[in-house]
Amino acid sequence: MPQTNTTARLLITCPDKAGIVNAVSSFLYNHGANITALDQHATEAEGGTYFMRLEFQTPHLDLSRQVLAKTFEDAVARRYGMDWTISYAADLKKVALLVSKVDHAMQELLWRWSRGALPCDIRCVVSNHPDLQQQVERFGVPFHVVPVTKDSKAEAEAQIQSLIGDCDLVVLARYMQVLSGDFVAKWPHRIINIHHSFLPAFVGANPYQQAYDKGVKLIGATAHYVTADLDQGPIIEQGVERVSHRDDVETLRELGQDVERNALARAVRWHLEDRIIVHGNKTIVFS
Amino acid sequence: MPQTNTTARLLITCPDKAGIVNAVSSFLYNHGANITALDQHATEAEGGTYFMRLEFQTPHLDLSRQVLAKTFEDAVARRYGMDWTISYAADLKKVALLVSKVDHAMQELLWRWSRGALPCDIRCVVSNHPDLQQQVERFGVPFHVVPVTKDSKAEAEAQIQSLIGDCDLVVLARYMQVLSGDFVAKWPHRIINIHHSFLPAFVGANPYQQAYDKGVKLIGATAHYVTADLDQGPIIEQGVERVSHRDDVETLRELGQDVERNALARAVRWHLEDRIIVHGNKTIVFS
Amino acid sequence: MPQTNTTARLLITCPDKAGIVNAVSSFLYNHGANITALDQHATEAEGGTYFMRLEFQTPHLDLSRQVLAKTFEDAVARRYGMDWTISYAADLKKVALLVSKVDHAMQELLWRWSRGALPCDIRCVVSNHPDLQQQVERFGVPFHVVPVTKDSKAEAEAQIQSLIGDCDLVVLARYMQVLSGDFVAKWPHRIINIHHSFLPAFVGANPYQQAYDKGVKLIGATAHYVTADLDQGPIIEQGVERVSHRDDVETLRELGQDVERNALARAVRWHLEDRIIVHGNKTIVFS
Amino acid sequence: MPQTNTTARLLITCPDKAGIVNAVSSFLYNHGANITALDQHATEAEGGTYFMRLEFQTPHLDLSRQVLAKTFEDAVARRYGMDWTISYAADLKKVALLVSKVDHAMQELLWRWSRGALPCDIRCVVSNHPDLQQQVERFGVPFHVVPVTKDSKAEAEAQIQSLIGDCDLVVLARYMQVLSGDFVAKWPHRIINIHHSFLPAFVGANPYQQAYDKGVKLIGATAHYVTADLDQGPIIEQGVERVSHRDDVETLRELGQDVERNALARAVRWHLEDRIIVHGNKTIVFS
Repeated sequence: MPQTNTTARLLITCPDKAGIVNAVSSFLYNHGANITALDQHATEAEGGTYFMRLEFQTPHLDLSRQVLAKTFEDAVARRYGMDWTISYAADLKKVALLVSKVDHAMQELLWRWSRGALPCDIRCVVSNHPDLQQQVERFGVPFHVVPVTKDSKAEAEAQIQSLIGDCDLVVLARYMQVLSGDFVAKWPHRIINIHHSFLPAFVGANPYQQAYDKGVKLIGATAHYVTADLDQGPIIEQGVERVSHRDDVETLRELGQDVERNALARAVRWHLEDRIIVHGNKTIVFS
Repeated sequence: MPQTNTTARLLITCPDKAGIVNAVSSFLYNHGANITALDQHATEAEGGTYFMRLEFQTPHLDLSRQVLAKTFEDAVARRYGMDWTISYAADLKKVALLVSKVDHAMQELLWRWSRGALPCDIRCVVSNHPDLQQQVERFGVPFHVVPVTKDSKAEAEAQIQSLIGDCDLVVLARYMQVLSGDFVAKWPHRIINIHHSFLPAFVGANPYQQAYDKGVKLIGATAHYVTADLDQGPIIEQGVERVSHRDDVETLRELGQDVERNALARAVRWHLEDRIIVHGNKTIVFS
Repeated sequence: MPQTNTTARLLITCPDKAGIVNAVSSFLYNHGANITALDQHATEAEGGTYFMRLEFQTPHLDLSRQVLAKTFEDAVARRYGMDWTISYAADLKKVALLVSKVDHAMQELLWRWSRGALPCDIRCVVSNHPDLQQQVERFGVPFHVVPVTKDSKAEAEAQIQSLIGDCDLVVLARYMQVLSGDFVAKWPHRIINIHHSFLPAFVGANPYQQAYDKGVKLIGATAHYVTADLDQGPIIEQGVERVSHRDDVETLRELGQDVERNALARAVRWHLEDRIIVHGNKTIVFS
Repeated sequence: MPQTNTTARLLITCPDKAGIVNAVSSFLYNHGANITALDQHATEAEGGTYFMRLEFQTPHLDLSRQVLAKTFEDAVARRYGMDWTISYAADLKKVALLVSKVDHAMQELLWRWSRGALPCDIRCVVSNHPDLQQQVERFGVPFHVVPVTKDSKAEAEAQIQSLIGDCDLVVLARYMQVLSGDFVAKWPHRIINIHHSFLPAFVGANPYQQAYDKGVKLIGATAHYVTADLDQGPIIEQGVERVSHRDDVETLRELGQDVERNALARAVRWHLEDRIIVHGNKTIVFS
């Protein structure tokens, strides 16, 4: 179903018990919400963790947002020990992109966004190089250069933070710097990175060279949430492309860029539409 | 979730209205059924047709099957104008395969079935040629030859029917005969065919020759329910494989066989697990 | 192998006979050309049509281009009845794009071209609508509007022709007008169109609506040379994407756009690198 | 082109120099061989390693096999420092399969072989368990049980070797034992293994459990030549399948088996048709 201005989304994580669907759907029905999508998942047949994503339409809701939240907590969530969030499609998430010199991932996001295919508010693009300025400003998006050196990393991160501080999501669209643990801790499960390999293969630097040296027959890309552990955060989406002995490193890089930009665009969209729940080091994606 | 012996499945089609999830989940909860999977779909944002598939576990049900059905009809289904069925994983569907001379589709189904990956009871294989007898009997499945000529078609179909009469599903695993409208009418949405092209391209005879002559760069296969209209029934599943100018008709046929057997195996499994609802000439597949 | 400034490409079509590889490679070797890629194909094991693509490096050629051509014709080609062409990577092909209102296919080509991934000289973009002007001019490419109505078609085509007259290749990047047979005849196998379906399925208008109505489980796109026969020209490349009952027509269109732009970009690149030979209504693609 | 009884294949590895195509094709032409397929590859634009695969038809050869080999060595190969082999499609390679308890990979190979799609002579299947005996003998192939324990490994390998000693190719179709370096050394680049992960991810034991724990969104399989280094030999072919959070380890295993058997079948076929050249730890596959 398309996401409209009256769509709200409820994400729930809780211990699995009988009666949850009933409790949640009764609550929403009784307050005038019309459920238009419902997905659920349980880690075990019994006694595991339960996850749910609901979309509902708000026009006939009989409660304000604030009262809805409080009432849901009191009437349902507490009883089942739920972690939950409600978000509203009308509240566009504020997004910052971090980039370096290569443009393919950023260009794909900005282009999709410009034609309405990424429902968010792209606040700015921050880069450690000036190369992409013109390409960003064409889309009417502010562009900031924050150079990073070994010695200036802390200051640079402070500066980035002041530029993007109120954003809901940070997307590393081939930002070639490793963020500090402190920085990452400020956006838990709200920084998405695109790694240019099929993780967990080829962690770290220059994965296309690694793939070439290994002689793999498929190359890949991985969109994942960033955690303190480099290239180890929860995987959101992966893609692959067939390659052969004919492809040199440069060709792998070029083919890989198409995989990267598509995997990243899907991951960002799912995040924006509240389709992802992180559980431990894994994701549930209700796509 | 794996399908267990205590799994039941409820399929619903009805006009879309607010409150359906709530009504159904309340009913099941109140009678001791634990919902372990739930999918839904609506054709329109509002006022369309609504489809639902629920899996629930039966150990704590407080009603017999018969009473459950009657109570659900009286308490929920009638109110919402539902078409619905409940089926039980423990009741294996009875399946007949119709084949001719080529074995790949049949072999794939029998092999998956023999290792427990197709939950059904394969009652028999009927062919218009004797070629595959030994291959079928190896699996402990009865094999019947019913030759078909232009003049004997009616009798042949009568004979087939007497052999497979109580089956729940008929799978045409490359059965090269066109079934009569009368025959088809006896198994509405319960005959699955594998057509060796990406429908609606290359309807009719010899699709690989057609594909070769056309010079397509991908070949496909389509699993669909059989209706009176040749190769036009509701599509369940499709697959494709990349080909090139190097591939002659024979190679297309060989590559295509891998696509056919996999698409057919998926379609049959989805049918056996009650994941498919037919709506008009299309399918909803809760895979 | 990457295409460099010193790369030349020889394409040959001729009746299949023994000795062709030897004749061609001897000729090139004896004149100082170093063969760096060689592909061949024959339609039959014997007595069919033979196709060959060679890449060779020119630095040590002992003949001028003109003399090379004449000598090859006299010494080799005439003897085997060859249709052949030699082209030079250093001579960028001149390309015109024809578009209407939607931008995805054009944007993909311009973007790839701007980063050096489409070796050609994009001379201009012509549209029957003004919408994409800014988007084209950003790339430094001239943009022309030539409106088309039923009555003005002949004049419009004359005007387009005067704008793009010396181009080597015309790409219809979702140009929503049917070109006349006269126009098409001027660029034999040098107009590439992207059709938004998996041909031969869904010829004609609004293929995504057709695909939706049919309930297919995969949608596709087809890049093909344009001939007088609408949507029937030789197929160069096809792509597909999996869809489900959840996808409405608008979503099919959006998913399809990604397939379209990638299939078209591959087809155009192969044409630019002289990897395609048309034979009857089919293509040999030495990709 | 289909491989016929009169097809011969020449594989060449040598330092890249100008004139090789010419030298080889002249030689073959002058001795009555008709070249029906030709592929080549060079690792660098200049000065790298050169690889070639030629298919030629033998009916009009003017030399015996032995004389052809000697003459080719003297007239061409020595001059260019070539490693080369000529093989004849009429000489079916002798193949042994090593298996344990799971049947999917073995079954796929035996079934394809039984219908003529794997041109070889399957001499026997050896297993460390008796489970698959009946399934093998149905195909008319001898089945041997050679149990392996920690202490009996050397004897077991000796016994296996005496059973398969004259085979040209050993296929590990999910043989769950690690072969000793001595054993491996006896079949250099002539043992093919299917590893049930997308290498280099998930080396070692229980890769589906590893994949599940990591939460990957695609699972894969890798067919590779076995070397002394576990799971590190030259990769021949890889495949992947999309998975989601809904798939438990058992489902990953089941989905993975389809990827495994197809990747292995392709790899074995390419080996049998002499399409693979090993170079360092990588493969050139002229598929």
